[in-house]
Amino acid sequence: MPRNAFYAQSGGVTAVINASACGVIETARAHPDKIGTVFAGRNGIIGALTEDLIDTSLESAADIAALRTTPSGAFGSCRYKLKSLDEHRAQYERLIEVFKAHDIGYFFYNGGGDSADTCNKVSQLSATLGYPLQAIHVPKTVDNDLPLTDTCPGFGSVAKYVATSMREAGFDVASMARTSTKVFVMEVMGRHAGWITAACGLAAEKEGDPPHILLFPEIPFDEESFIARVKATVEKYDYCTVGVSEGLLDKEGKLMAETGSRDAFGHAQLGGIGPQIAALINAKLGYKYHWAVADYLQRAARHIASKTDVDQAYAVGKAAVEMAIAGKNAVMPAIRRLSDNPYKWDIVEAPLAQVANVEKKMPRDFITADGYGITDACRRYLAPLIEGEDAPPYKNGLPDYVRLKNIAVAKKLPGEFKI
Amino acid sequence: MPRNAFYAQSGGVTAVINASACGVIETARAHPDKIGTVFAGRNGIIGALTEDLIDTSLESAADIAALRTTPSGAFGSCRYKLKSLDEHRAQYERLIEVFKAHDIGYFFYNGGGDSADTCNKVSQLSATLGYPLQAIHVPKTVDNDLPLTDTCPGFGSVAKYVATSMREAGFDVASMARTSTKVFVMEVMGRHAGWITAACGLAAEKEGDPPHILLFPEIPFDEESFIARVKATVEKYDYCTVGVSEGLLDKEGKLMAETGSRDAFGHAQLGGIGPQIAALINAKLGYKYHWAVADYLQRAARHIASKTDVDQAYAVGKAAVEMAIAGKNAVMPAIRRLSDNPYKWDIVEAPLAQVANVEKKMPRDFITADGYGITDACRRYLAPLIEGEDAPPYKNGLPDYVRLKNIAVAKKLPGEFKI
Repeated sequence: MPRNAFYAQSGGVTAVINASACGVIETARAHPDKIGTVFAGRNGIIGALTEDLIDTSLESAADIAALRTTPSGAFGSCRYKLKSLDEHRAQYERLIEVFKAHDIGYFFYNGGGDSADTCNKVSQLSATLGYPLQAIHVPKTVDNDLPLTDTCPGFGSVAKYVATSMREAGFDVASMARTSTKVFVMEVMGRHAGWITAACGLAAEKEGDPPHILLFPEIPFDEESFIARVKATVEKYDYCTVGVSEGLLDKEGKLMAETGSRDAFGHAQLGGIGPQIAALINAKLGYKYHWAVADYLQRAARHIASKTDVDQAYAVGKAAVEMAIAGKNAVMPAIRRLSDNPYKWDIVEAPLAQVANVEKKMPRDFITADGYGITDACRRYLAPLIEGEDAPPYKNGLPDYVRLKNIAVAKKLPGEFKI
Repeated sequence: MPRNAFYAQSGGVTAVINASACGVIETARAHPDKIGTVFAGRNGIIGALTEDLIDTSLESAADIAALRTTPSGAFGSCRYKLKSLDEHRAQYERLIEVFKAHDIGYFFYNGGGDSADTCNKVSQLSATLGYPLQAIHVPKTVDNDLPLTDTCPGFGSVAKYVATSMREAGFDVASMARTSTKVFVMEVMGRHAGWITAACGLAAEKEGDPPHILLFPEIPFDEESFIARVKATVEKYDYCTVGVSEGLLDKEGKLMAETGSRDAFGHAQLGGIGPQIAALINAKLGYKYHWAVADYLQRAARHIASKTDVDQAYAVGKAAVEMAIAGKNAVMPAIRRLSDNPYKWDIVEAPLAQVANVEKKMPRDFITADGYGITDACRRYLAPLIEGEDAPPYKNGLPDYVRLKNIAVAKKLPGEFKI
């Protein structure tokens, strides 16, 4: 009898993490001699700890295939980081107990940096706790900050969404600038690295195109220089569009979003940095402004996913299972870029120990010297990641996303485990 | 020699107002014996007043065709309302002067309620100032508040965008609710009428689907009842999604967005009502929240336009020219609904005098008795308006929108006109 597999989604979900789930489950199903049932953790690793497992074999082939075009985490995700084995041995012992009860020999963990760390710890259980288990990490994060991989599935689709939105809003503002709105500010995700902010820049094809100014978390905010730049842009082009990272820092390294407004109830950070920057421009220059904060809309926007991103998300899921079947442990399928244009890539094996707890930063030479734009090198890197469209099916005018049955596996262990 | 036409875009632009421009220009070009050149006003009616006319005959057929898939106002729009003839006779005389200089016999004005009023005034010039001119209004507004027409071009695409975004964000929050975000609030446009707020409701197909609560400008905000509703929703479904109109009013009829926060510079209305509602929920119930304000993204989102909307936008532009050729004045092509399902419609003639300054409100029976949702009658009305997809062409992974050459016609009048 082949042993079963555990699959879980972790951290913030994306437009394509379910495409990875689809890759994992379809590939496992294609190898019934090697892998038994794929059990999914309900709400990520919490599902393993609480023995709340979903039997994916009860889902139809059509529904599993539909995961490829469905955003979000079909089995639920969580923000929960396992501590080290020394600190929290009971958690690891519990995992082994659950895995043993359900004859789980493969552990697939789909997430970003924190999850890679968890997966790496689980990969050591085999040796340290004497339980035979292969742990493979499936990369995912809109933040694009995992090392050893050309990009992280999830990022390309957010990049396509923010660049499209910036272009569309830019066209809008250009139409209105004569008598109305002159400034438009869009706040985007990416607290520690400016990858998503940089992606806004793809909307510009030539001098003067939106976005006119990008505010990266890597470049401390300089109010005077920024305001001068906005003024010069409006004087030259009649309007100004700004893309700003939620993680913009002031000169003291403090998060700008936290230094801003207080709401009617006295809570900080009612408005994000987007409205704050827009209001600053209005206060200093008097221009009429609009602002947008896309928030979850950007990372859930499966309707405008990048085909490249969807293909890569599926490919890392598929490769993870193939690596497991090949007997690997403590690895992550990584995307290797073979050429920029045309974009060619394949999947290689990255050692998990080198992935966990390493953040891939934006190279300084991806940001222009003045700090407000992206360089050609950055554009060469980003451009292929948003290539291709992959529209979901539509029904009644709306994307038709699948909801799985998510039927729980009967518990085999007595008692409850408190998380 | 056939007389020339003037065409201008007015007020807030939309994802499909250029499809109407396309309908006007292509139809005029198809009747060279009846209509000479179509001159577009640069920045709306201001272009007429300042004799800043764009010669659309210098644009290629391919570029004019591409207007059908390009959002925003290709010739520039404006927020500028002509006063009455009594109040500002000089403006009307100036219009006549410019029209006479360029032999303009047809006036096509593409806008919402204010523009219909302007167009109606211009339609009277023929009689009052003795200049032969036919004025036809081309309906447009995301607010969906023009009377005598089943819907307003521009609205269907915003409706499709907000319903899609609500569904996608709803899937996202559902994935995260176990350990992270439990509440998601999305602020949408529509200051005076809840049509766009109502459209969010199309995302829900069955009990429990997002959005769980809608806050309409028609229903004064009741904090206690709202908070109780959020609590009950989270307890039942583990998360709660809210769509809120930017025009939400408090019990005294005051705009909630203006009663909220002040920014670091002391300005009111830094955050909109979206973040305000999210913060209120957090203050009262402690749930972790996210919020989005789509702002211009929603009305510029040509990438997810409704095919029905695009078709209607083109049709009203085409019909406007046909009405002009038929000798009509002071009319507006209106959309008449013939059946709900399948949606059938045709174009009829509406007298402009009955359109100007009349706001179509949402019927009370489109909102559920409790004030937080839409009724089946509302759903029947809205559903067909978002039907069909009409993707723009893509290039390098992004929608490929056209920028016209917009070459100015040589001025024939001496001096400048101050607006």
